[in-house]
Amino acid sequence: MSIAPPTATIAPRGLQGVVVAETAVSDVRGAEGFYQYRDRSAIELAESSSFEDAWQLLVTGEKATDAARPAFQAHLDGAVAAGRSDVAVVVDAVAATTPDVLAGLAASWSLLGARRGIRPLYDLDEDARLAEAIALAASTPVIVGALWRRGRGESLLPPIEGRGVVANYLHQITGAVPDEETERALTAYLVAVMDHGFNASTFTARVIASTGADAASCLVGALGALTGPLHGGAPSRALDGLDAVGTADRIEPWIRAELAAGHRLMGFGHAVYRTADPRAELMKRVALRRGGPRVELARQFQESAERLLAEAKPGRELHANVEFWAALVMEQCGLPREMFTPTFAVARTIGWTAHILEQARDPKIIRPSARYAGPPVRGKAA
Amino acid sequence: MSIAPPTATIAPRGLQGVVVAETAVSDVRGAEGFYQYRDRSAIELAESSSFEDAWQLLVTGEKATDAARPAFQAHLDGAVAAGRSDVAVVVDAVAATTPDVLAGLAASWSLLGARRGIRPLYDLDEDARLAEAIALAASTPVIVGALWRRGRGESLLPPIEGRGVVANYLHQITGAVPDEETERALTAYLVAVMDHGFNASTFTARVIASTGADAASCLVGALGALTGPLHGGAPSRALDGLDAVGTADRIEPWIRAELAAGHRLMGFGHAVYRTADPRAELMKRVALRRGGPRVELARQFQESAERLLAEAKPGRELHANVEFWAALVMEQCGLPREMFTPTFAVARTIGWTAHILEQARDPKIIRPSARYAGPPVRGKAA
Repeated sequence: MSIAPPTATIAPRGLQGVVVAETAVSDVRGAEGFYQYRDRSAIELAESSSFEDAWQLLVTGEKATDAARPAFQAHLDGAVAAGRSDVAVVVDAVAATTPDVLAGLAASWSLLGARRGIRPLYDLDEDARLAEAIALAASTPVIVGALWRRGRGESLLPPIEGRGVVANYLHQITGAVPDEETERALTAYLVAVMDHGFNASTFTARVIASTGADAASCLVGALGALTGPLHGGAPSRALDGLDAVGTADRIEPWIRAELAAGHRLMGFGHAVYRTADPRAELMKRVALRRGGPRVELARQFQESAERLLAEAKPGRELHANVEFWAALVMEQCGLPREMFTPTFAVARTIGWTAHILEQARDPKIIRPSARYAGPPVRGKAA
Repeated sequence: MSIAPPTATIAPRGLQGVVVAETAVSDVRGAEGFYQYRDRSAIELAESSSFEDAWQLLVTGEKATDAARPAFQAHLDGAVAAGRSDVAVVVDAVAATTPDVLAGLAASWSLLGARRGIRPLYDLDEDARLAEAIALAASTPVIVGALWRRGRGESLLPPIEGRGVVANYLHQITGAVPDEETERALTAYLVAVMDHGFNASTFTARVIASTGADAASCLVGALGALTGPLHGGAPSRALDGLDAVGTADRIEPWIRAELAAGHRLMGFGHAVYRTADPRAELMKRVALRRGGPRVELARQFQESAERLLAEAKPGRELHANVEFWAALVMEQCGLPREMFTPTFAVARTIGWTAHILEQARDPKIIRPSARYAGPPVRGKAA
């Protein structure tokens, strides 16, 4: 007999279709092209809500009403103010060793967690866990902005008073005070990608949380998974096709050549959605609102790609995914490509913290089994 | 319908007993009190093998014969030499922000990965992946030793020529050149805990690896899980009972009071073993070999604890686990308690890298499902 008891269930490869938990954070209905945060349509939220209001809903489960909003905002402001000096110390140390923003964010979280005092989730009550989750997520756009500027030899800009998380984040990255249209466009992206079911990074955060580890350790693990090429955490790759074709007349020959060479078309297809990805459709609306020749090229690219993919891989339902149109939106907002994945991480951190808090309420370690398939023990009957 | 397709399997809580993969790295036979690395009894290896030989077997699957050993040793030496200046830069930066060795190790791996150049596992061939895994694991005792010394305001000691990983590690932590008995005792511990099935940290490493992320990201996530109180990554807690009782006559009343108060007895019981934990028995043999009054107290504590636990929780089969006797061995070797978990991490890194390499050969993301159990969407039929 092996690690698995005799009654073991053999799970499908990659745990595909295996329900590992119940959640009240979010739901994705792949066949319907619909997903929700708590009891709200995520797309509706992305179109109408502020970053802070969506954050409050996802993490606390509580709608950001006029009555509930000030307390959460005060909590955020307090967390940022309290963390400012620790963040500065950590970012200074980290930025001196590497310009890589994602690795720098992971290291910064680890060190910030230690400076705050490592506190296992299981040792904290609900309020203390929530405070920890909010403090780490609040520090994230600040850390990312600071690492980006420090990596280019620039110092952090003073906050824009009276503007929220998104405007301040854009300010650090682009160096300019963003107009409201730009702030609204990036907010739509960030809210739309805050959470999305039990993808590998969220699952990683929950496995680590199930050991009772501290919140920073959970986030660092999740970020590692996000950076993997199969996770879909690299929206900048979705622009490769647009860059390669340059003009509309080259779209179709280029795509045909890529498919003939057996290459995957970046920005098309998704593990869960068999319909159009609702996030892609939202991002497309946002991008078209501002318009321009680049967006027109993207529209034509999408049309050709979906048609040629349907020809080449009939029945596969390969549509433009969120990466494709999100890349266009981030480009319009003035974000450099190397900041696309860190920006994704800023948003997804909100979902990770919501899942960590939920997992921490269930004190059961996630510890699966495996089947040994190697050679038998030498010198012992197997 | 939910994240899970209609045909979804509902997994037991914590994925207990669910076989998530095949592995040729190791096997644990809980009912038999036996575990193996590749085709060898792990206990036999721990009693007889060097740290480096066990490392070679686990990571390459190849026995460290006289013919095979020199190439692996050259590989290790080369990795340490090549990484020395990066490790120094990273440790300097990290140690300036926190004295916490575990958080510091996580941050150091993240930064070291970036300085080496982030390379997704899926972009590397087998040889390059192995080189990456060996380089990171080889850096680990060096980083841990350096963080420990720097946290106390001391600089790194020069390596002891002609001695291996374990002697050099002990040297950095204790400040003394270890005798062979001490080196042998710590080697037995380190080899015995290099790997142990699909525990939460190893599973975390594999989930992250399944996204194709780089090896450092996998290790950082695994370390986060290891630090969780439910993982069993805190051997120093196992000494709490011994410290509290002080003398043999106080053992029984103290244990009875703890059990009556509903406290868990640290160092007893294990998720997999229903027999005696073979690692505990090995560590007990190692500790008794050196002997002394503290070990005699531990022996009596174990005897009383197992008897009283059998009375209080009949049928539960709660035996001393590896943490109990490992703590005694580490104490005998002169390791301070705050270095018990980092020392465990130095050993377990070997197993994590072996699992990461195995997982990277299967390009399938681990992405389970969940069942939504929150309120229905407002303003939409559920």
